[in-house]
Amino acid sequence: MPATAPNPKKTRLEALQGVFDSGTLQQTARLLNALTPAEIAHFLESLPQTERQLVWELIPPDKEGEVLVNLSDEVRDDLIEDMDGQQLVAAVADLPLDDLADLVQDLPETLSREVISSLDSQHLQRLKAVLSYPEDTAGGLMNTDTVTVRPEVTLDVVLRYLRLLAERVPKSTDTLFVINRDDKYLGALSLSALVTHDPDATVAEVMSLDLKPIPADWEARKVAERFEQHDLLSAPVVDKDGKLLGRITVDDVLDFIREEGEHQFMGQAGLSEEEDMFAPVVDSAQRRAIWLGVNLGTAFLASWVISQFEDVLQQFVALAVLMPIVASMGGIAGSQTLTLTIRGLALGQLNAGNSRWLIIKELAVGAINSLIWALVVAAIALIWLDDVDIAGLIGVAMTLNLLIAALAGAVLPLILHRLHIDPALAGGVILTTVTDIVGFFAFLGLAKVFLM
Amino acid sequence: MPATAPNPKKTRLEALQGVFDSGTLQQTARLLNALTPAEIAHFLESLPQTERQLVWELIPPDKEGEVLVNLSDEVRDDLIEDMDGQQLVAAVADLPLDDLADLVQDLPETLSREVISSLDSQHLQRLKAVLSYPEDTAGGLMNTDTVTVRPEVTLDVVLRYLRLLAERVPKSTDTLFVINRDDKYLGALSLSALVTHDPDATVAEVMSLDLKPIPADWEARKVAERFEQHDLLSAPVVDKDGKLLGRITVDDVLDFIREEGEHQFMGQAGLSEEEDMFAPVVDSAQRRAIWLGVNLGTAFLASWVISQFEDVLQQFVALAVLMPIVASMGGIAGSQTLTLTIRGLALGQLNAGNSRWLIIKELAVGAINSLIWALVVAAIALIWLDDVDIAGLIGVAMTLNLLIAALAGAVLPLILHRLHIDPALAGGVILTTVTDIVGFFAFLGLAKVFLM
Repeated sequence: MPATAPNPKKTRLEALQGVFDSGTLQQTARLLNALTPAEIAHFLESLPQTERQLVWELIPPDKEGEVLVNLSDEVRDDLIEDMDGQQLVAAVADLPLDDLADLVQDLPETLSREVISSLDSQHLQRLKAVLSYPEDTAGGLMNTDTVTVRPEVTLDVVLRYLRLLAERVPKSTDTLFVINRDDKYLGALSLSALVTHDPDATVAEVMSLDLKPIPADWEARKVAERFEQHDLLSAPVVDKDGKLLGRITVDDVLDFIREEGEHQFMGQAGLSEEEDMFAPVVDSAQRRAIWLGVNLGTAFLASWVISQFEDVLQQFVALAVLMPIVASMGGIAGSQTLTLTIRGLALGQLNAGNSRWLIIKELAVGAINSLIWALVVAAIALIWLDDVDIAGLIGVAMTLNLLIAALAGAVLPLILHRLHIDPALAGGVILTTVTDIVGFFAFLGLAKVFLM
Repeated sequence: MPATAPNPKKTRLEALQGVFDSGTLQQTARLLNALTPAEIAHFLESLPQTERQLVWELIPPDKEGEVLVNLSDEVRDDLIEDMDGQQLVAAVADLPLDDLADLVQDLPETLSREVISSLDSQHLQRLKAVLSYPEDTAGGLMNTDTVTVRPEVTLDVVLRYLRLLAERVPKSTDTLFVINRDDKYLGALSLSALVTHDPDATVAEVMSLDLKPIPADWEARKVAERFEQHDLLSAPVVDKDGKLLGRITVDDVLDFIREEGEHQFMGQAGLSEEEDMFAPVVDSAQRRAIWLGVNLGTAFLASWVISQFEDVLQQFVALAVLMPIVASMGGIAGSQTLTLTIRGLALGQLNAGNSRWLIIKELAVGAINSLIWALVVAAIALIWLDDVDIAGLIGVAMTLNLLIAALAGAVLPLILHRLHIDPALAGGVILTTVTDIVGFFAFLGLAKVFLM
């Protein structure tokens, strides 16, 4: 690849990629310095292993901690392996609390103990508060860097207070939280409300009651829903008594939504959203092997079903030619319903009330499509093989399998969801097992009954 | 379902669902009134058709426009069908410009003309500016509701100016944009910077140069990347000359990321992310039929390959029993690589420089796993069928198919991407066609050569 001249149309990342490819390490280091930690993380993830190590060495030490936070788990673990405790403690010293909590939970025991013992007692106490909630809850997502005010003071006092705090007001602050003497959350004072109202007004007069506090034990999915549906930039998190614990900012919600989408997409192929594109070959092979093994089990199950009909197959070899069609069409139809149902569940739009409707509707869709495609397949089979019996059999088998596929696609995720098994991960394998077995069994079984 | 008493642990949406199920329309209307438009849209999407119409009638007219904006395309079209032009014009009258632009682009010709002709000339001009950019670019995402200030004024003047604007400052404002006399973007003054600095300082002294403007022709994907990597709440959009055109807010980026994730997930099953879970049965059946038709074509292709080996199958019926295993394992292994590659492309982490590495790595992973599973399958086949020849053949065929699968999974999305074909939609079908055909051809072809 030729050396790339700086181009205003390119992002800084694209420019960096160009410079890195052309091989001048000094220039790379200079460009790296200008990037945000998230950009550096993105760049590291897109590098093969050896180059990744090389670039990691060039990153300014004061950015190492935030870069680590932004990396996917796998790439992070890989880089941390080569750091000693002291290096790591230095890197994470200035991390915000929510990021530190995420990181500590993923560190090996010895390293996490070293990091924790480096904290002063105030930080330690706050970290423990965040760590006491599971990672995928509001409490786990929150940071404790809130700026709070009292309802009875005037906006002018608030403005003077903020100027006093100055640098200690987190840059991402868009809203101040109003609390009473007992730390109970009362309402929100957005900075835009603060600067557009009369300075003599009191906080109580101007504050908004619309920003409802989020209980610390809410699932992250529900928090994301709240942010999306109310267009929030930040939201207060409270404990059971309504006491303000911290705040969640939209950037963490954005990360969560991105990861949830990747989880659904990657899960269908048995991959984790944390998978490193350039993981060592042996690691990758090992992880994939599990998924291949599970699928091999289901494939042999289907084979066993076929083996029960060896006598019919021997007599009518055309059955062997056509049988994959019945199974595969069932798999396709079923996975359409499955995908729709999994999305409905992920969005929280499916519940006891309307899932009955969905099942009925999907069965109706399945009925229409099974009849249409049964006729088409039967017609093609008739023209191709000139055998009315086999054409009729494949039509009936297709109808059956597409109906079962619709039912399984709609019901399976609902059952898995209730059993707390992730439908995005397990749904596809189970579904195709069902449609393979039903497809082969219906087609070959009918043939055995009617042809022999 | 029994009537549900209000429960503080429930979200308002869950409470609404309970009240609606228990059948008191008046109570439902009251609860609806308390919801945000996005919440109402979410609720409507989760309702079957007849109930959806019923609830739509209960929505306060002043919220109808924003509810429409928040609905998925399909549900929206369905509801708009029953509105006349006048109703629609009234509903969209107060929409923000970016939302109005999105909506107008999706309306039928006659309705969109009616809406446009209802605008005053200032609004019309602004709408045209937004509409002149494709929907999935920075220009299409932006809104024109920026608050701008000059660099030479003091913060005190800015504060007085904002108090004067008062209600006209959009609620979601977190940052003011600094422009010169020619409307050129110079920098950003966040409200948190405004309230924490000395009022006598000038804007130029306090403003940040870190918030780089986004060119209006940037793709939405790139805009999202910028927001994620810089933790932005809003960002300025400029034209080719650096003139400020408008701003993009993080809530629109959030929607985009959510939709992109759904697009990848749903696309694999040939569904659109706009698909209505409760679409009319005939509409659903029709849309799904296309995907089933495409897959039927590929299934018959595989059948034709099998039919070329009828003579071997007739003689060795065990081949018919085992052949689906070879094809299906290839499909699974290939789709793992495919998924990883598609994600890399979607994140912008795959490029000419590192895709070579990915292909080599995936081939190496494929080589390891193909050998392992070829041995396992051969061993099981040997024990099951007690036939050394067939066990050997299936082992060799598996090895071949898993290698081809790894190659196809890595290369296919890269080719499709370059041809501007969406790999998330077309990748899976093409891949399984390849692995089916290679699997059947390798296994049966080898059998024909060595067994007959």
